[in-house]
Amino acid sequence: MTKINENFAKLPGSYLFAEIARRTETYQQAHPDAKLIKLGIGDVTQPLIPAVVEAMHEAVDEQTSSDTFKGYGPYEGYDFLREAIAKNDFRARGVDISPDEIFVSDGAKSDCGNIGDIFSRDNKVAVCDPVYPVYVDSNAIEGRAGEYDPSAEAWTNLVYMPTTAENDFCPALPDTDVDLIYLCSPNNPTGTALNVEQLQRWVDYANDHDAIIMFDAAYERFITEDNLPHSIYEIPGAKTCAIEFRSFSKTAGFTGMRCGYTVIPRELERQGQSLNSLWMRRQSTKFNGASYIIQKGAAAIYTPEGARQIREVIDFYLNNARIIKEGLESAGLHVYGAVNSPYIWCKTPNGMGSWDFFNKLLKEANVITTPGAGFGPAGEGYIRLTAFGGADATREAVERIKKIL
Amino acid sequence: MTKINENFAKLPGSYLFAEIARRTETYQQAHPDAKLIKLGIGDVTQPLIPAVVEAMHEAVDEQTSSDTFKGYGPYEGYDFLREAIAKNDFRARGVDISPDEIFVSDGAKSDCGNIGDIFSRDNKVAVCDPVYPVYVDSNAIEGRAGEYDPSAEAWTNLVYMPTTAENDFCPALPDTDVDLIYLCSPNNPTGTALNVEQLQRWVDYANDHDAIIMFDAAYERFITEDNLPHSIYEIPGAKTCAIEFRSFSKTAGFTGMRCGYTVIPRELERQGQSLNSLWMRRQSTKFNGASYIIQKGAAAIYTPEGARQIREVIDFYLNNARIIKEGLESAGLHVYGAVNSPYIWCKTPNGMGSWDFFNKLLKEANVITTPGAGFGPAGEGYIRLTAFGGADATREAVERIKKIL
Repeated sequence: MTKINENFAKLPGSYLFAEIARRTETYQQAHPDAKLIKLGIGDVTQPLIPAVVEAMHEAVDEQTSSDTFKGYGPYEGYDFLREAIAKNDFRARGVDISPDEIFVSDGAKSDCGNIGDIFSRDNKVAVCDPVYPVYVDSNAIEGRAGEYDPSAEAWTNLVYMPTTAENDFCPALPDTDVDLIYLCSPNNPTGTALNVEQLQRWVDYANDHDAIIMFDAAYERFITEDNLPHSIYEIPGAKTCAIEFRSFSKTAGFTGMRCGYTVIPRELERQGQSLNSLWMRRQSTKFNGASYIIQKGAAAIYTPEGARQIREVIDFYLNNARIIKEGLESAGLHVYGAVNSPYIWCKTPNGMGSWDFFNKLLKEANVITTPGAGFGPAGEGYIRLTAFGGADATREAVERIKKIL
Repeated sequence: MTKINENFAKLPGSYLFAEIARRTETYQQAHPDAKLIKLGIGDVTQPLIPAVVEAMHEAVDEQTSSDTFKGYGPYEGYDFLREAIAKNDFRARGVDISPDEIFVSDGAKSDCGNIGDIFSRDNKVAVCDPVYPVYVDSNAIEGRAGEYDPSAEAWTNLVYMPTTAENDFCPALPDTDVDLIYLCSPNNPTGTALNVEQLQRWVDYANDHDAIIMFDAAYERFITEDNLPHSIYEIPGAKTCAIEFRSFSKTAGFTGMRCGYTVIPRELERQGQSLNSLWMRRQSTKFNGASYIIQKGAAAIYTPEGARQIREVIDFYLNNARIIKEGLESAGLHVYGAVNSPYIWCKTPNGMGSWDFFNKLLKEANVITTPGAGFGPAGEGYIRLTAFGGADATREAVERIKKIL
């Protein structure tokens, strides 16, 4: 008799963004004339840059002739892209990462979700609270999270590290030993970034405890303040304790194109095994490379023209972030993030619950946000807004919110 | 202390095609003038059809304007593609599969590899022998295969079903209870196809034992003989016991584009849970949809023009298959497959080992094949050739092989 993975039944409700989409659709169906502004899910809205479009057209054209047609690509990604990444995302910042430490994929979400394949179920996992749900749910599915305790809104076997205004959004080192530590900086959902000193503490902890840091740097391109690390490998010692996830989704508007990459340094070993080799084996067994056309598009952001064009788009989003931050602050709300991130993390007014504030903004302002509680118990009392809307829509959303407060 | 997944260390050697690539590269480096003809890996060589190219260009152009730009798509694929699949791949053959039973992905290999996520480790897995390595290796990584026994060239906890000339390439029902059964028809690597009566026996077994059939139909488009099932859902009872995997890789030359899909009928439940819902949860947690551009390209094969164009390409490959089959038979070899498949399964001469014959063909004929033993112990004594080469290269390869025999 076939037995299913019983961990699925333990997952509470459905995946956060699916739940928001359902509530939004229900509201829209009941109010077909309502002009909803979506500042909830972190999805981009600006067109792809011309350099990417041109590169993808060229790549499509290559498929019309046997001489230039591309069949199966390398499991780990094409050299042209891995070399451009190593040179521009790392060496240009003085970080020594080589192409063979880079694995290109169909997106950072896939990698964050699948990376658990190379680790034993018997590892203690630590996550920030609030947290990007993929880290938690994928570990729950794989049996590392224990049982879900609805009263605590938490999994019995996960270590939650509160990351709130009270500790300046820097998680404290855990009192118990942990093995796999998920850190995201600039952070989703709080929009805040860890500095060198803060990250150094975590790298030292991980090396001391033979732990691994899963470092999600999907938003590094939004960092505007000097002296903030863009990669964990800027921190001495990180190559022996950290895996880094990067994404073209927000950097280059690739949420619908699908491309990201994972860095696993050669030096990174546990129990005598190279994690780089384990991941290569995992990917060659259960993945068949990212689409050639999409990889060509991704590589185009590393040309001088492409780099200039994506900078413009990111600055456009950062300007939206500033508008939201300043608008909500002028309405008396406490607001975090936005400076080094497309995310704005906003305290709810008068101690309102975050799903209640979500519903209020949906129904009274027709603005879709993400309730902080959806990211974990310590996210209660916050909502997340994103800077990915259009400029006019963002301004209008802020005005609408200010009116109902 | 981080603990790795110890199952990786049990995997023997490296993934078959990586091993072949390594041997080929070593030979080519030592003999830079050798003109190798690759009939080993099942990779297509013909250009994408015009209908697909046009659709992908249009999809790229849509990304240049906010109005038509596509961000995150549905986890399960766009409706336009799922509806085209349901209509053309199923209803047109009288099979009632609806779009919400279809999950589009970045490829059948990913799906075959990841599907194990929804099942418990505690399932007995049966595979054909010889077998596409992904089924075995992914289950080994997930801990269902037990230990690898080098003397038997087999995993202690897998049930191997010999599929050889002796049983007309139809695996016998196992004597022990099994829970997850991998069947591939037309088969990779043997190129043979199961008929309705043979598949009905398996569907009845699976329903009787509450087992699940993982039915890999990646090569269905190559079926030329009448009355052979293209989908397992043509068999009464299959919807309560089978998951079907389909691929655009061989159907439309998408090995480098990456697109496939998985069918999980609504009726398919185990332990009171819908497998369709479990897979949706898995995909929404650990996957973010296939690339929009690639999905638009895939949908183009269902237009009248696209259907005609892919038929021409498949006929071209089937003609190669016929040339290989007839050529090798004229040289006195025993040859199977090729009629409903791009694969030719060839008995080695004089009881030669399959890696030995692989090496002989590499070194003396400069033709790259795949050793049957790489697909499992019962593949020993066979090699696999593929029909995916160019017409001239295929003819030349056959001539070269005939000369050295």
